[in-house]
Amino acid sequence: MSKKILVLAGDGIGPEIVAEAVKVLKALQAEGAIDVTLEEALVGGAAYDAYGDPLPEETLTAAKASDAVLLGAVGGPKWEPLPISKRPEKGLLGLRSGLGLFANLRPAVLYPQLIAASTLKPEIVSGLDLLIVRELTGDIYFGQPRGVETLPSGERRGLNTMVYTESEIERICRVAFDIAMQRGKKVCSVDKANVLECTELWREVATKTAADYPGLQLSHMYVDNAAMQLVRAPKQFDVIVTGNLFGDILSDCAAMLTGSIGMLPSASLNAQGQGMYEPIHGSAPDIAGRGIANPLATILSVALMLRHSLGAPEVAERIETAVSKVLDQGLRTADILSEGMRRVGTAEMGDAVVAAL
Amino acid sequence: MSKKILVLAGDGIGPEIVAEAVKVLKALQAEGAIDVTLEEALVGGAAYDAYGDPLPEETLTAAKASDAVLLGAVGGPKWEPLPISKRPEKGLLGLRSGLGLFANLRPAVLYPQLIAASTLKPEIVSGLDLLIVRELTGDIYFGQPRGVETLPSGERRGLNTMVYTESEIERICRVAFDIAMQRGKKVCSVDKANVLECTELWREVATKTAADYPGLQLSHMYVDNAAMQLVRAPKQFDVIVTGNLFGDILSDCAAMLTGSIGMLPSASLNAQGQGMYEPIHGSAPDIAGRGIANPLATILSVALMLRHSLGAPEVAERIETAVSKVLDQGLRTADILSEGMRRVGTAEMGDAVVAAL
Ligand SMILES: CC(C)[C@H](C(=O)O)[C@@H](O)C(=O)O
Ligand SMILES: CC(C)[C@H](C(=O)O)[C@@H](O)C(=O)O
Repeated sequence: MSKKILVLAGDGIGPEIVAEAVKVLKALQAEGAIDVTLEEALVGGAAYDAYGDPLPEETLTAAKASDAVLLGAVGGPKWEPLPISKRPEKGLLGLRSGLGLFANLRPAVLYPQLIAASTLKPEIVSGLDLLIVRELTGDIYFGQPRGVETLPSGERRGLNTMVYTESEIERICRVAFDIAMQRGKKVCSVDKANVLECTELWREVATKTAADYPGLQLSHMYVDNAAMQLVRAPKQFDVIVTGNLFGDILSDCAAMLTGSIGMLPSASLNAQGQGMYEPIHGSAPDIAGRGIANPLATILSVALMLRHSLGAPEVAERIETAVSKVLDQGLRTADILSEGMRRVGTAEMGDAVVAAL
Repeated sequence: MSKKILVLAGDGIGPEIVAEAVKVLKALQAEGAIDVTLEEALVGGAAYDAYGDPLPEETLTAAKASDAVLLGAVGGPKWEPLPISKRPEKGLLGLRSGLGLFANLRPAVLYPQLIAASTLKPEIVSGLDLLIVRELTGDIYFGQPRGVETLPSGERRGLNTMVYTESEIERICRVAFDIAMQRGKKVCSVDKANVLECTELWREVATKTAADYPGLQLSHMYVDNAAMQLVRAPKQFDVIVTGNLFGDILSDCAAMLTGSIGMLPSASLNAQGQGMYEPIHGSAPDIAGRGIANPLATILSVALMLRHSLGAPEVAERIETAVSKVLDQGLRTADILSEGMRRVGTAEMGDAVVAAL
C-alpha cells in the first residue's frame, strides 16, 4: 500500500533543498523501490503569509493523516517582528506537539571526506559518531504559565516555565536507552541537577529507568560541563539524552563540531512511529533563492524517514551510500567546499545523488 | 586604609589553589604594594560538613562586611546525594544573591603560549579575546515557583521558573555596554526570543537600552546559534551579554575553546563595586589533594579583584605580567602541559609567580 508523505518546504532555503529530496523520492518511486504518495502543504512564514497562521488547521490535519512528514526549515528576519504566537517557529512547535513527536534524534557524525571542514583538530573529531536524543514536546518550550506581565509597579516581567513529569522523562529515556543498546551501550544524561529541581527529577527518573537495561552504562553530566566536554573531547560520548532546551543548544554545538552541519539529518518520532524528518540546519535566509544551499541533510532525512517510518531500511542505505559516493567524487556545495573539490549548486548536487543511487 | 578580603577556599582543589593566590597577596603586602586584611570562612561542602549549612550566616555577614571575596570552588560527588537546598552550590548561589552580585564577567582569552592546548585549529582561536557578561542573580536560577510536586494522579512533576524584569535586564545590559565601549564597541545579546517570551522581553530591553550608547553595535543571536558560532568562528565576538542559564552554558563552552580553562578568572560585581572573584573552572574533585591543580586562574582572579574592587590597577597588571612571564619560562601545570615544557605542581607554580612579580 502506498505510504503518504506530507512535504512541507517552509521558508528560506527550505523549498530549494526539499525539491532535491523530492527528486530522490521520485527517482526511487519511478524504479519501483518505494511506493509513496506525496502531498504538499504550507507551514511557517510561508503559511503565515498565505493564511495569517504559521500552522493552518489543514496542514496539521494532513500531517496527522500522513505516514511521515518531510520538512525543509522555517523562519527568517521577515517574520521576526511578529508576536511569538504568529512566528514561523510556532508552526514547527505546533507540528511537534500536535503530532506528539516527543523523541528528536540528532546525530552528529563526521564524514571522513569532510574532516577538513571542522574547526576542530582532526584527532579530536575524526570518527566522531554521537547521537543526541532530545525531548521535543515538553520543557520550557511548552510550559505554562508563560508570557510578559505588568507588575503593580508598572514594570514588565517576562516568564517561562520549565516543567517535566516523570512519565515524560521516562519515555524519552527509554528511546535513548533502546537506541544505545544497539550502539555503544553508553548514555550520558545531561541536566542541571545541582541547581534546577526539575532536572533533579530528570536525573532520578533516568537512573531508575536505566535499571531495566542490563549492560547499559548511564552517566550524568551538568549542562555547562557537557558544553565544555563537547569541545574538549566529543568522542567520549555515544548517546546523549536531555531535555528540549538543553538539547536545542547542545545539538547545534555538536553538529558544528563535525563541520558538516549542512549534512546532518534529524528525525522526530511519536509513540506510533510516525515521524517528521528535517535537516538540523535552519532556513538560512541569507543564501535563500541562490541555488547554493546544501541539499544533502534533507536528502539524508529522507533516508531516516525510509528507515524509521516507512519500513524500508535497505532503500535508506542506498541513499546514504549514494551521498557518500557523491562526496567521494569530490562534489561539494559552498558550505563544505575545500581545496581541490568541485563546487556545485543545490540542483546539481541533487542530480548527482540520483545518478549515484 | 586596609581593605578587607574574605577568603573562601571551598571544596576540592579550592584550598590548594587559593593558598597560592594568598601567597601572591601576602608577597605584595610584604613589599607594601597593597594594604589588605585577610579573613577566612567556610562555604560550600566544607561549610555543610562543619555546620550543616553550605552558607552559614557568619560567612554571609563576613562577606557583606568585606571589600572583596576571593573564592576557590565548591561542590563534589560527596555532597551530590543532598537535597538541592543543602548542596555546596547553594552556598555559592546564596553569596551571589546575598551580595547582589548581578554582573558576572567571564573573559575567554587565548594565551599565545598555550595555543597548542586548544582543541580548535590555531587559526580559529589565535588572538581570541571575548568577554561574556552573564546576569547572575536572576533567571531560572532563582525564579519562583520551583520544586517537585505530586499531581493528583500520583505522578511527580518538576518545575522551575525563568523570569526577568525590565530593570534586571537593563542593568546587566548597561554593564555589558559600558565595558564594550572600552573595547571593540560590539555586543552580541544572546536569547531564545523565537520561543521564550521571557527572552523576547530581554531582546526588547537590550535594544532600547543600546540607544543610550552611540557608536555601540548591538546584535542579537539565538542561544542555539550562539553555541554553534562559538565553535565555528569565535573571533566574531567581542562582548556577549546574556542571562544566567545561557551564560552558564556558553561561558563554559567559550572558556574551553581557549584550551586554557585553568587560566581563566572571573569577577562577580554588585552595584556598589563590591565583588567576588573566582576561577572559571570548578572544584575538580578528581585531582583534589594531589598538588597538581593549576593555581593561575585563581591568581589572575586576584588581579581582577585589585582592578575592580580594590582600586589598584597597576598592581593587577604586575600580577598579569608575572603570570605571562612564568608561561614564557615554560612552566606548566598538568592541564596545560605540552611538549618541551616543564611540568610543575600547584605550589611551585605559585612560587614562580611570586618570584616573577
Ligand atoms: C526554530 C526553533 C523553534 C527550533 C527549536 O528551538 O527547537 C530549532 O532551533 C531547532 O532546534 O529545531
Ligand atoms: C556551581 C554552579 C552552581 C555554578 C553555576 O551554575 O552558576 C557554576 O557552574 C558556575 O558557572 O559558576
